[in-house]
Amino acid sequence: MIARYTRPELAALWSESRRLALFLEVELAATAALEAAPSSPIPPGTAARLRQLAAQVGPLDPSRVAEIEQRIQHELLAFLEHVEERLGPEARWLHFGLTSSDVLDTVLALQLREATQIIIRGIDEQLLPALRRQATAHQQTPMIGRTHGIFAEPIAAGLIFLGSYAEIDRAKARVQRAQKAISVGKLSGAVGIYGSGSVTPEVEEAALSSLGLTAETVATQIVGRDRHAELLWSLASLGAAIERLAVNLRHLQRSEVREVEEAFAPGQKGSSAMPHKKNPISAENLCGLARLLRASASAAIENIALWHERDISHSSVERVIMPDSTTLCDYMVQRAARLVSGLSVRTERMRQNLSESGDLYASEKVMLQLVRAGMSRQSAYELVQRHALACVADRGLGSPSFLDRLAGDPQVTERLSGEALSACFELATQLQHVPTIFMRALRD
Amino acid sequence: MIARYTRPELAALWSESRRLALFLEVELAATAALEAAPSSPIPPGTAARLRQLAAQVGPLDPSRVAEIEQRIQHELLAFLEHVEERLGPEARWLHFGLTSSDVLDTVLALQLREATQIIIRGIDEQLLPALRRQATAHQQTPMIGRTHGIFAEPIAAGLIFLGSYAEIDRAKARVQRAQKAISVGKLSGAVGIYGSGSVTPEVEEAALSSLGLTAETVATQIVGRDRHAELLWSLASLGAAIERLAVNLRHLQRSEVREVEEAFAPGQKGSSAMPHKKNPISAENLCGLARLLRASASAAIENIALWHERDISHSSVERVIMPDSTTLCDYMVQRAARLVSGLSVRTERMRQNLSESGDLYASEKVMLQLVRAGMSRQSAYELVQRHALACVADRGLGSPSFLDRLAGDPQVTERLSGEALSACFELATQLQHVPTIFMRALRD
Amino acid sequence: MIARYTRPELAALWSESRRLALFLEVELAATAALEAAPSSPIPPGTAARLRQLAAQVGPLDPSRVAEIEQRIQHELLAFLEHVEERLGPEARWLHFGLTSSDVLDTVLALQLREATQIIIRGIDEQLLPALRRQATAHQQTPMIGRTHGIFAEPIAAGLIFLGSYAEIDRAKARVQRAQKAISVGKLSGAVGIYGSGSVTPEVEEAALSSLGLTAETVATQIVGRDRHAELLWSLASLGAAIERLAVNLRHLQRSEVREVEEAFAPGQKGSSAMPHKKNPISAENLCGLARLLRASASAAIENIALWHERDISHSSVERVIMPDSTTLCDYMVQRAARLVSGLSVRTERMRQNLSESGDLYASEKVMLQLVRAGMSRQSAYELVQRHALACVADRGLGSPSFLDRLAGDPQVTERLSGEALSACFELATQLQHVPTIFMRALRD
Amino acid sequence: MIARYTRPELAALWSESRRLALFLEVELAATAALEAAPSSPIPPGTAARLRQLAAQVGPLDPSRVAEIEQRIQHELLAFLEHVEERLGPEARWLHFGLTSSDVLDTVLALQLREATQIIIRGIDEQLLPALRRQATAHQQTPMIGRTHGIFAEPIAAGLIFLGSYAEIDRAKARVQRAQKAISVGKLSGAVGIYGSGSVTPEVEEAALSSLGLTAETVATQIVGRDRHAELLWSLASLGAAIERLAVNLRHLQRSEVREVEEAFAPGQKGSSAMPHKKNPISAENLCGLARLLRASASAAIENIALWHERDISHSSVERVIMPDSTTLCDYMVQRAARLVSGLSVRTERMRQNLSESGDLYASEKVMLQLVRAGMSRQSAYELVQRHALACVADRGLGSPSFLDRLAGDPQVTERLSGEALSACFELATQLQHVPTIFMRALRD
Repeated sequence: MIARYTRPELAALWSESRRLALFLEVELAATAALEAAPSSPIPPGTAARLRQLAAQVGPLDPSRVAEIEQRIQHELLAFLEHVEERLGPEARWLHFGLTSSDVLDTVLALQLREATQIIIRGIDEQLLPALRRQATAHQQTPMIGRTHGIFAEPIAAGLIFLGSYAEIDRAKARVQRAQKAISVGKLSGAVGIYGSGSVTPEVEEAALSSLGLTAETVATQIVGRDRHAELLWSLASLGAAIERLAVNLRHLQRSEVREVEEAFAPGQKGSSAMPHKKNPISAENLCGLARLLRASASAAIENIALWHERDISHSSVERVIMPDSTTLCDYMVQRAARLVSGLSVRTERMRQNLSESGDLYASEKVMLQLVRAGMSRQSAYELVQRHALACVADRGLGSPSFLDRLAGDPQVTERLSGEALSACFELATQLQHVPTIFMRALRD
Repeated sequence: MIARYTRPELAALWSESRRLALFLEVELAATAALEAAPSSPIPPGTAARLRQLAAQVGPLDPSRVAEIEQRIQHELLAFLEHVEERLGPEARWLHFGLTSSDVLDTVLALQLREATQIIIRGIDEQLLPALRRQATAHQQTPMIGRTHGIFAEPIAAGLIFLGSYAEIDRAKARVQRAQKAISVGKLSGAVGIYGSGSVTPEVEEAALSSLGLTAETVATQIVGRDRHAELLWSLASLGAAIERLAVNLRHLQRSEVREVEEAFAPGQKGSSAMPHKKNPISAENLCGLARLLRASASAAIENIALWHERDISHSSVERVIMPDSTTLCDYMVQRAARLVSGLSVRTERMRQNLSESGDLYASEKVMLQLVRAGMSRQSAYELVQRHALACVADRGLGSPSFLDRLAGDPQVTERLSGEALSACFELATQLQHVPTIFMRALRD
Repeated sequence: MIARYTRPELAALWSESRRLALFLEVELAATAALEAAPSSPIPPGTAARLRQLAAQVGPLDPSRVAEIEQRIQHELLAFLEHVEERLGPEARWLHFGLTSSDVLDTVLALQLREATQIIIRGIDEQLLPALRRQATAHQQTPMIGRTHGIFAEPIAAGLIFLGSYAEIDRAKARVQRAQKAISVGKLSGAVGIYGSGSVTPEVEEAALSSLGLTAETVATQIVGRDRHAELLWSLASLGAAIERLAVNLRHLQRSEVREVEEAFAPGQKGSSAMPHKKNPISAENLCGLARLLRASASAAIENIALWHERDISHSSVERVIMPDSTTLCDYMVQRAARLVSGLSVRTERMRQNLSESGDLYASEKVMLQLVRAGMSRQSAYELVQRHALACVADRGLGSPSFLDRLAGDPQVTERLSGEALSACFELATQLQHVPTIFMRALRD
Repeated sequence: MIARYTRPELAALWSESRRLALFLEVELAATAALEAAPSSPIPPGTAARLRQLAAQVGPLDPSRVAEIEQRIQHELLAFLEHVEERLGPEARWLHFGLTSSDVLDTVLALQLREATQIIIRGIDEQLLPALRRQATAHQQTPMIGRTHGIFAEPIAAGLIFLGSYAEIDRAKARVQRAQKAISVGKLSGAVGIYGSGSVTPEVEEAALSSLGLTAETVATQIVGRDRHAELLWSLASLGAAIERLAVNLRHLQRSEVREVEEAFAPGQKGSSAMPHKKNPISAENLCGLARLLRASASAAIENIALWHERDISHSSVERVIMPDSTTLCDYMVQRAARLVSGLSVRTERMRQNLSESGDLYASEKVMLQLVRAGMSRQSAYELVQRHALACVADRGLGSPSFLDRLAGDPQVTERLSGEALSACFELATQLQHVPTIFMRALRD
């Protein structure tokens, strides 16, 4: 992923040097588990000595590994050759009974588990709290709700944030399930059946469990790629949840709406041509990044149907999308959290828009009162629609309000008292169940 | 979905008449719950009377609803008008305090729950048992494993089916979780806050619970579309699991391989030009259908980021992909089950291919024995590779076998006894842990 | 495709009976060309007699073909058996030297050519003229332009339509190129090399040319699937062009904007709960359908990499997406044309929004004048930005206008005359090059 | 894109320093054109002086621009501030009357044009010639053709390469058309209507033409994104063409087939566990990369429907996919060319497989001869199928050949002479039209 969208933590996780260190970590775990097994071929103390040696000689050298790979065209064997250069002859006990994919897939599991952990932490510590704060702060702030982009009925502004809170919480649960699904390694050798005769299912379990992983149920040469596709999809779904929030914050920042505003740093410039512009660029940026996440998820699902005991076509895809999607997702979570935290919610403007929406939002309640008073649903609908559309047509001309029109229609007045009619226009009634929704969403 | 890929059960579920019946079901549930609420506007007994009336007049008429929709361009209101025609004035108590989406989304939940139930049943009763049978039957059948399409080491034929068993079981779990995620309705009105003043959160809960659903945590006008995207993705992931199986069965049916064979009905014809052909058309068909499922999943994720309290752009997408994906997925499960059940596994041909693969599969174990005997990993690798590539180069010319070559190399013989060397070529050793894998996969 | 989105013309084109008629058409064309070839096996007059017989016995019977296919599991052979039932023993000369795919792919080419022709006609006769009319009608109508959803500088309303005109015209060119790419058949037999010894390249050319098609350059058993993928993508690109138009018309219909309005039929109802609603449902519908088109295009590209001389995995995909995408695209073109034609453009509201946007749009021209007068770009930017942001902050409070503020700043007045300053605020200057753009776009 | 898949030429093209150099190039072109216009605000000689100054001070400093961007959060304004630091006060004439997108989109056009030029050159100079060489070398090499993975009829091995030659040539034509579609800049200012009053359509045309570009017909703030989507799709289509070739080369390298072999460098290692392995890793790698290209194309099509006169959501997507897809595509072309060039085609093995396929491939010709002799198509089909399936069932048991069986069937012998029958089994007849196909494909 390009530097612009990469936080240092993720850059480190996906660096070559980190990858080599994890290769060694997994090899050492396997050697230690194999050494401890009954009738082990490995002399006692080997794993401990190798680990100590590794600590002494310091980090492996990615450029040396690349040099060897150039010659032998096999990444893992290049790593092993380099380790043997560094740690000397005892290093031959590393990788004993393993195949490259044992190490590659187990390392990938460790990287993905950590990457998702960082993302989940960002959700838990930054994004959800920011949403909760804005939601709670505006639990009672009335604003006009919009469906189809058209004024509908009033809602509370806090619901914008609470809805995203609930949705992102669902997305988090998916990422967590996917994290579990990919926290799976394998050390079962070339075709997944422990054929080398040295690493047994028990050795595998011991080694993986020392790394915090479990073993693939039925491995081929590799771990099932449905697991990775689930992860990529869960990230795409998190991206889409952030996108929905971002789309709405872009709408609310439109010049005609102006109900919220992204923080604009002192010194910031909005447009090279138009010095007057302040643009919702964080929200727009997040919408774009969500597209990248779902594109990668669609590549991941094509990686599942590999040939026989595996083909390696998934590898080039994963070298790109695994770092890219986790890195982007982390960036999005952080940027979304900052966006929400720094957002000005302009309650006075909300009130103004609500009032400009007129009193049409009461149309449903009036219709229901008429039905209740015995009118057929259809007749009530048509009566109310007639007055409402007349309001819209005359809007802004000092023409009678919706309430005025209804109050002047005998078909209404013969069925509803003035009191019953004006009760339909009460904002407090409209919002009375909002606290229940908050309780339902925030109970945890 | 076209008739060719639609089973009658799914056709019925997604028919217009079923849809209308479910509309009415949901309206009646809401009316009953509202009638039972404290200070209800609805006269006691209304819901029961309406339900009875509905039973008397029989099924609603899709063509009449279409006719009304033509005029008013609103599907749900057309339904209500038709119901009012049928059930008379008391029908005005239906839809009281609801918005169209309350009914549409709740009905969609019912349809999707049932569709996924049929799919899950197919997995449980047809597909998984078929895979289990073939797996168990061939737990001890040796065949050559292939990675990159190249002979690797022997495996047991049953693992082909066991691997798909485990993967489809994981896919089933995703479908089940998604089923739960979409078993969610809403009756919270126009903007999701029970603004009509009549249907409260308690009424919603009672009505939905009578339908076996729960309520959306924070609804807008509709239920969150992340739920539906999760479902569509879970179906795509099931499709990909079936695709992996199908790809492998296609490979195993190649003329040069012929290790399995699809059932070929008496009277069946393979090619219009070539009367000698028998083609793996079921497996090929399944591969294509998997592409359709993932395409629909990518449309579903674009449906999430709707505007404000909802826009209706998702609706046209869902009218197509919801029936299509569930119908296709059901078809795939059934067809895959038949494919697996009817498959001939040609064990003698497997033995023949295994023997033609030569004895190179032992290369790993020989290398490990040399390492164990003190050789560096690199030297051992290069020694073994030299003999192995010589074997491949001379293949088929009555040239010495891999074992012969090794047994003639002093670098080998000074390190390994003849017994130790030939032990590397034992098939029984290679397959010794297969039963453990079976136990691990089939424990449930 | 579901009936709701299928026009009768497309339904007929993709019907089973039409498919059978085209099968016969292609078989007859091949038989005629083969009969006319030197040293033909076919007795003179056969093709003419078969064509006459076919006309006499009338249309083939899809249900009978389905019945036969049930038994032999091969669609094309079922068709041939039915034809033999109908036309008698001379029918054995049909399909002579052909393979099923010769007929299937050539028929598919005919159907796709016709489907795209209908779509292109819709663009030419309905959609582009509608856009041109609205564009031309509003070439001089000023409205505020928006970037990032924020007021930018004024534009002419006609540009909204003119931009879509140009984009849809580009999309049409892509569909036309794709139409050419798929107007390709093949009659080269089982593996594409005319191996039957009867149908030669010359016979193929004669037969295809009588159908208005050309021959695949290097066929396998089938025509290259890159051609069909190009078509599906061109339809998706047309869909996206319509989507951009629809998105913008949705924005312009927002309650806060109200600059355009979809036609609302007398009797139409907008919402079951809210009788006051008029929603931009056509534009929303089109946005959804565009998602379906691109999903199908992504399935089509997966159909390209078939195995060897072909595998049949593409077939199940194409049975669905070929009718679906062409049918949807046709529907979209027609609905978009109606949407544009019926649209009210509310010029008075545009003027009002433009005036509410204030006079900030002049900020660029003022900055440029200051630069021209010798100020550095940066200083000029910051001066103008300072006044502009002050305007925004005070907006709506009777506070000084942007022009007032600038006119009161000595840094400005010492550089610009009052005349020069107010010239920056002229709308006529802003729109002076619009006619040139129109000429550029409409020259044809 | 990660280094592993990036050639230096593409890395340089997409580097930050190259981007800044192109920013300056475009600004200078615009300034020069504006200076030359009638009644230009820019003093004569300015552009030339700035160009000279720029040459003197040397390349711009990406890290300084990044530093400024950090403060003002606007990339293009940061560039301009840095240029002003470097070139002094006359730099205020740069960007006169332009908006950021004028420069960004025009620079993007220059980069994409160059990137596609490199890709096209690779196709023309490396990939197509390699395919042509292999095709021509094997125009007469017989091999068994396979449909559904099942032996069909013989083809010539050269057709494998010739088919890809034709398909990649079609893909190249798409890339060329797309290159033309994106060789379009714009200098029409903030909302695309030359509103600054200084840069006119004529100035734009002069400036763009000096850069080898044309002007967007109807711009918004930016160039239409349908153009970029077309490019990304054309690259995906090229990727799919390479994928089809790669899939087939993988099949032909299977252990059971072994008809071709990727070059295996001396010293190369195939597997860490199995020293005997040589794997088709180039072909597998290419299959994976094709998935990435189509994923990016699907993100690109979502970038089309921007809001109003533009929103900036496409920007984050393009920062990633534009460099990534062009870089990957270039890498694929080069690697595919090396793969094809270095490929061993093992003609003796092809002969062997062909002979093992038996003589069933003649089934079509026998059937046609029977039809010709008066048998009905159906009866002929069933007769031939019966003998053919018997052959398959008895295969390898020294059982009679297909020809033997037919020669022993009186239904055959009473219709066909021995000579006519054996003529059906001639390979030369089967391949007689291959030269015509070659001429058709290679005429240029």
